[in-house]
Amino acid sequence: MDYAKESLRLHREWKGKIEVIATVPVESKEDLSLAYTPGVAQPCLEIQKDIEQSYELTRRWNTCLVVTDGTAVLGLGDIGPEAGMPVMEGKCVLFKAFGNVDAFPLCIKSKDVDEIVNTIYLISGSFGGVNLEDIAAPRCFEIEKRLKEKCDIPIFHDDQHGTAVITLAGLKNALKVVGKELTGIRIAVNGAGAAAISITRLLLSAGVRDVTLCDRSGIIYKGRAEGMNEIKKEMAEVTNPRGLKGTLADAVAGADVFIGVSAPGVLTQEMVKAMARDAVIFACANPTPEIFPDEARTAGARVIATGRSDFPNQINNVLAFPGIFRGTFDVRASDINDEMKIAAAEALAGLISEEELNEDYIIPAAFDPRVGQAVAEAVAEAARKSGVARR
Amino acid sequence: MDYAKESLRLHREWKGKIEVIATVPVESKEDLSLAYTPGVAQPCLEIQKDIEQSYELTRRWNTCLVVTDGTAVLGLGDIGPEAGMPVMEGKCVLFKAFGNVDAFPLCIKSKDVDEIVNTIYLISGSFGGVNLEDIAAPRCFEIEKRLKEKCDIPIFHDDQHGTAVITLAGLKNALKVVGKELTGIRIAVNGAGAAAISITRLLLSAGVRDVTLCDRSGIIYKGRAEGMNEIKKEMAEVTNPRGLKGTLADAVAGADVFIGVSAPGVLTQEMVKAMARDAVIFACANPTPEIFPDEARTAGARVIATGRSDFPNQINNVLAFPGIFRGTFDVRASDINDEMKIAAAEALAGLISEEELNEDYIIPAAFDPRVGQAVAEAVAEAARKSGVARR
Repeated sequence: MDYAKESLRLHREWKGKIEVIATVPVESKEDLSLAYTPGVAQPCLEIQKDIEQSYELTRRWNTCLVVTDGTAVLGLGDIGPEAGMPVMEGKCVLFKAFGNVDAFPLCIKSKDVDEIVNTIYLISGSFGGVNLEDIAAPRCFEIEKRLKEKCDIPIFHDDQHGTAVITLAGLKNALKVVGKELTGIRIAVNGAGAAAISITRLLLSAGVRDVTLCDRSGIIYKGRAEGMNEIKKEMAEVTNPRGLKGTLADAVAGADVFIGVSAPGVLTQEMVKAMARDAVIFACANPTPEIFPDEARTAGARVIATGRSDFPNQINNVLAFPGIFRGTFDVRASDINDEMKIAAAEALAGLISEEELNEDYIIPAAFDPRVGQAVAEAVAEAARKSGVARR
Repeated sequence: MDYAKESLRLHREWKGKIEVIATVPVESKEDLSLAYTPGVAQPCLEIQKDIEQSYELTRRWNTCLVVTDGTAVLGLGDIGPEAGMPVMEGKCVLFKAFGNVDAFPLCIKSKDVDEIVNTIYLISGSFGGVNLEDIAAPRCFEIEKRLKEKCDIPIFHDDQHGTAVITLAGLKNALKVVGKELTGIRIAVNGAGAAAISITRLLLSAGVRDVTLCDRSGIIYKGRAEGMNEIKKEMAEVTNPRGLKGTLADAVAGADVFIGVSAPGVLTQEMVKAMARDAVIFACANPTPEIFPDEARTAGARVIATGRSDFPNQINNVLAFPGIFRGTFDVRASDINDEMKIAAAEALAGLISEEELNEDYIIPAAFDPRVGQAVAEAVAEAARKSGVARR
């Protein structure tokens, strides 16, 4: 099927993919007096006394803002705020379908960090949480950090953390297949965008000790002059323990795992051949991966995942964000922290039994009906244990 | 019924009065590929080429922002942004029930005009229109004016213009009952808040020549020193053609019509007795009107309207805003101008036939099933005629 053409045709027919509906009756004067004036004054006054009551008396408890500035939409780049809206609406559809979360899409007509942060902060009293979406790196890191400081609701950048959670889930199962441990392996991550940075951070949080990050200029190391920014400098401090310098090939040589969230075709068969035995490859560039699965396998890789639904082991964010927000909202967590993300990854990985687990089945399928609830429960539990649950 | 108590109980049970739902299927990988990635890239690119396509390919065409700063919520005053949300959700319920408009509620944590204007402007690309709600005067005038200049979507402050439309509709029919003409009558308006100012402006637009505005300090006249602000100065220029000074009683003496959007009990029977024959009284303070209907009638008034549903002739905004936005959205109007408001008032008034029309039936009932469509069609037609329709 020509997805582009058919999707455009359907979007014209649909004229939008979400709808805001009323959940209360408005069929009589009395209904009006209770849902609206004069009765509604009483719930208002209760919230005035105690803002926490906004989670009891309005839809806030279940409502997530899905917001973009339109600067990093899909693989399309900076296409403008309004042009990002079909993706935002699609995201809201997935939130509802897979997590029963009421998500509402907004685009912000600004690329200024201060303005974006302030806009989201000023409307944050209407929401239970915020999902940042398709905001270009490195601005997305600053926006997320400042919103986390400023707002009292959870802030989550799915392009970073959703991807990181699925990657960690897949990696845990891949390592079971090849009989290795997280703490003992060497990982090369290629890409220094939102997803690559977050994957690297979560891997470190989860116990990985030897991870090396590469960008277009090669290996990122302390003191490198070329193409650095604040976030890369931070990453140089906590990664690359053997002080490697050089190209992607140098990072990959001897590595147990390659994780690419970068560009088509950058991982060659020669590089794979130079990896450790039973290499694990996550080639997530989409739609054209860093290396195609059959090429990677021929070159000796044992487990291969991609971002595509037409190959085994798809790294698909829809496995994570709906359940993560479901669990977060269920316990009214004030944050989505690393403990919750790692719990989500473990829950996802745990859905595949030892008997089922194999090279081509390390991650549950997008439509596995167990996923949403399993992730939500694990996340809620981790929120309680880590002290961020508010109920 | 104790509406306060019962409404609070219901709000706890409802936990919100709106929901965001998906309108497209998400049951297979193929569904995902069409509603989301990779297919969704194509509609995004179409909007990038031509922003107008956002009205065809997303829900923007039918989506209205309902937004407050929480400073003038119902009769409760400045109760804070979050505390205004039960009213905003209620408003969204009415938008959907009476106009099939997808309305989404937001509260803004700021009382600063610049910040409020900028916040709404920055997210305006997500909406087809904006309904300002429960923002205190005189700030509301400035906010509305600047948003109209800055945004390319219609901006409507219902507390002003909705009320004005229903009042004009009721007045037109009341004048038929008493056999007078808009152009020949004297009107006294009491109150200088959002509604009073907008009512006065719309009356002037509709052809009224002699309207006098009063506030707590009495009649507003050119050069008055006490209690003036920018908007009252503007109004002093275009109202009070006979150069009256003095109290409300002085404004009301000899007037054909009193319109109060002010405070309980301020219109006395003596004042009504001093009005012209067949006086028309709109006593809209809520829940306690400026004068109760039986008192007004005893004092000689012929037609009396209030804001209450338990008396005849209720001035109820729900008669106007859903149909106004429906009509505006149907022709993608860039503005909601006076022509459209007057057309809405005429459509409302016209729903009552000459045979049905009487002292106690000058305005259709809130649940009259003809209202939404009649208003929408009249508004759409007026938008076309006045050149603001974009389709």
